[in-house]
Amino acid sequence: MTDFTKTRALFDIPEGMVYLNGNSLGPMPKAAPDAMARFLNDEWRTELIRGWNTKGWFMQTNTLGDRIGSLIGAAEGSVVVSDTLSIKVFQAVGAGLSLVPDRKVVLSDTGNFPTDLYMVQGLTKLKDDGYELRTVAPEAVLDAITDEVAVVTLTEVDYRTSRKHDMARIIEKAHEVGAVVVWDLAHSAGAIPVDVTGTDVDFAVGCTYKFLNAGPGAPAFIYVAPRLIEQVEPVLSGWYGHEAPFAFDTDYRPMPGKIDRMRIGTPSIASFALLEAALDVWEQVDLQDLRARSIELMTLFIDQVEARCDGVTLVGPRDMNERGSHVSFKFEHGYPCMQALIDRNVIGDFRAPDMMRFGITPLFIDEADILKAVDTLEDILKTESYKEDRFQVRSAVT
Amino acid sequence: MTDFTKTRALFDIPEGMVYLNGNSLGPMPKAAPDAMARFLNDEWRTELIRGWNTKGWFMQTNTLGDRIGSLIGAAEGSVVVSDTLSIKVFQAVGAGLSLVPDRKVVLSDTGNFPTDLYMVQGLTKLKDDGYELRTVAPEAVLDAITDEVAVVTLTEVDYRTSRKHDMARIIEKAHEVGAVVVWDLAHSAGAIPVDVTGTDVDFAVGCTYKFLNAGPGAPAFIYVAPRLIEQVEPVLSGWYGHEAPFAFDTDYRPMPGKIDRMRIGTPSIASFALLEAALDVWEQVDLQDLRARSIELMTLFIDQVEARCDGVTLVGPRDMNERGSHVSFKFEHGYPCMQALIDRNVIGDFRAPDMMRFGITPLFIDEADILKAVDTLEDILKTESYKEDRFQVRSAVT
Repeated sequence: MTDFTKTRALFDIPEGMVYLNGNSLGPMPKAAPDAMARFLNDEWRTELIRGWNTKGWFMQTNTLGDRIGSLIGAAEGSVVVSDTLSIKVFQAVGAGLSLVPDRKVVLSDTGNFPTDLYMVQGLTKLKDDGYELRTVAPEAVLDAITDEVAVVTLTEVDYRTSRKHDMARIIEKAHEVGAVVVWDLAHSAGAIPVDVTGTDVDFAVGCTYKFLNAGPGAPAFIYVAPRLIEQVEPVLSGWYGHEAPFAFDTDYRPMPGKIDRMRIGTPSIASFALLEAALDVWEQVDLQDLRARSIELMTLFIDQVEARCDGVTLVGPRDMNERGSHVSFKFEHGYPCMQALIDRNVIGDFRAPDMMRFGITPLFIDEADILKAVDTLEDILKTESYKEDRFQVRSAVT
Repeated sequence: MTDFTKTRALFDIPEGMVYLNGNSLGPMPKAAPDAMARFLNDEWRTELIRGWNTKGWFMQTNTLGDRIGSLIGAAEGSVVVSDTLSIKVFQAVGAGLSLVPDRKVVLSDTGNFPTDLYMVQGLTKLKDDGYELRTVAPEAVLDAITDEVAVVTLTEVDYRTSRKHDMARIIEKAHEVGAVVVWDLAHSAGAIPVDVTGTDVDFAVGCTYKFLNAGPGAPAFIYVAPRLIEQVEPVLSGWYGHEAPFAFDTDYRPMPGKIDRMRIGTPSIASFALLEAALDVWEQVDLQDLRARSIELMTLFIDQVEARCDGVTLVGPRDMNERGSHVSFKFEHGYPCMQALIDRNVIGDFRAPDMMRFGITPLFIDEADILKAVDTLEDILKTESYKEDRFQVRSAVT
């Protein structure tokens, strides 16, 4: 049984803060500064260029990838870490198209995270010649998977509503018609149990700065099913994915039969030091326990808000099994209300046009946090303190 | 006048080491650990998600870009930092092709850094339909720039021979025939004076882990001439380059008229903390002084090696003005000889098939380092200690 008081103690959260935004940027693990100091002083400073060998930097894309793989049910050697999630989406969808060369439709849904759609728009424009991104409403996805479709690309958990797609059913339908599926696990990895092997996922991508707590802009990851890797076109064909990266040949040859071919350029080793520290936390976590705890806390949060906070409306499914690990409420004054919450040290975020979003992350939040958050929200709503001028100012970055 | 004893004091190089590999991975600036600790403790830990606003994370792509821009003669607002150099090459060449839609040839040379060629191979394969990468010998580039060519992409300083292309002349010829040029400044930025404005560069890309000393896998940068930015297709069209990144629209619209459109996904903020500390060093450096000093040290190194070391042959131009800031010597036993040097704390590297490569980086090396390196090399050659078994073993990463 996972002891969540122990995991909570592994994070350095400012005194008095209720941090309900781990779905956007996880808090700093206490081990992060030492891990980074070790990298700086005992690796970069002293080993310099030799660190690529002596400190294993060159293969951290894979060793860290395997550790993430174990959180999403991936076989060893099927995940690598690096780059940004946007790049990984491009790479995965590009690779997917290379597997189904006779079709030109990429299917997604309108609830997908925008950058996923943007990257595919860029990709289809590059490929030109009839390639298109087709988007439908999330609930219409299953029916839209026809034999015209080459690649289905979806985010499992909707970043606004928390609605979870039925991965298994969508994959089954896609495979029936000969399409491949790219899953964005940005709001899944570290949030809910995922089984890429058991559900026969083709490609998956995700980030490590949300539920995995590796810091702002921490690297992304990509999973490719071992059954596909040998046929997969890397599309972004950099030296780090070459069969012989240090032969300095002028022609690209993808690393045969290995996930390494999805590596592109030289990765940030400093960011790997933080990721390593962040992944250590997961050594003592059972994802089924995490999920049960997340449902418990989400249920408490929703019940309390609905009982005590007038004017706000739950977004997304009521069935907890159909949700990820965040909860959003619509509220006409959602933006200033969220600023008022933040001002009182209850940190969530706002998503246009009117959603207040709260990440429910059992690794470091508990019932007391939930109750304090609801107390604060209730008070803000009752006193209408969200109407204060200072809460109306929109910041550049929200 | 730049005081290079002062800049040398800003780096934390292990006692007794002669580090002639700053062209591959720069040493750690002494300010790096504190800069990183500040980011971890005073930004991520305490500000959490708010750091994107309160600590300026969101615009560090640009603020750091401007600082790099000042080292390459770029106007403010024309450089952004992020991703890897491989990705930036793809983005720049892709953007270049979008400017010359009626032509399908990308021209490069066989001495270009392999990943630049690989990324273009991936790009032309994606675009298909007659697009091709054409490579010629470095000395044949000028003549190969014909009106068939859409994009010329070259690395200014050859990573092996140190031969410097005549940027101004190549750009002039390219512009005459209606082509655009993408310059890879990996071995130029921080190594030699570059003037992207004065030479009318269209696109430039580079990395920050070599002569700029921002750590292993530190982020890359891209420059786009202000006269082109409004027409440029970002190709890798991520949310970070969107006109309204927080509107979460489903359609991509590039940031109008700004270099921001070349931003792709969420950048690693930890890596920016190191880059910031590394760029502080340059505040006290005049690049003309750096160049003069580099030539002085390269001349000493070449003279001494040629006078005292039998069997090794200088690679690349004799005219110092036609070189970058590294020196390579061919030697039949180059690989084990370099291992023997490294074993004696003189750090250079080896490039197949037979080149020993030495970075001459005045920020932190001086005459005493050069003489110690040559003493060591002379001794290894005289005693033939490179023949020892232990120096024959090839490491996975070289």
